[in-house]
Amino acid sequence: MNYTVAINVMPLKDLLDPQGKAVLGGLHNLGLKSVDDVRIGKRITLQIDAPSEQDAKKIAEEAAIKLLANQVMEHFEISIIS
Amino acid sequence: MNYTVAINVMPLKDLLDPQGKAVLGGLHNLGLKSVDDVRIGKRITLQIDAPSEQDAKKIAEEAAIKLLANQVMEHFEISIIS
Repeated sequence: MNYTVAINVMPLKDLLDPQGKAVLGGLHNLGLKSVDDVRIGKRITLQIDAPSEQDAKKIAEEAAIKLLANQVMEHFEISIIS
Repeated sequence: MNYTVAINVMPLKDLLDPQGKAVLGGLHNLGLKSVDDVRIGKRITLQIDAPSEQDAKKIAEEAAIKLLANQVMEHFEISIIS
């Protein structure tokens, strides 16, 4: 079976996110004053060939840990899309 | 009320995603051969002060259209997290 799996990689809560701060400034300049905070991360979708959803999730987790997320600065979450 | 809204910005299906292709190669080199395709986009979370969920969504949509997504090359989807 082929599964589509999404991995969201976001900067840790306690870390500064300068890119997010820049975008927040940009949104305020555009008049969107009701936005209080912005954090910017990555979203990665993988097509995975696996016998079960569980296996697909495990492969995605391995990919995240080994390559996609830097766990010193980022956390990730995995979800099966289809 | 304060809402946390997530915007996922992904490259359009029919467009090449060279960053995704590079990551796919990296995953194969790491032995994760069952990954067939990788696409990489952005995930942006906003804290929005709005009277209702509907309003928060509308503000996030405006932010996406005006600043965060380039609709020539990307599509976006918005979801309320909390």
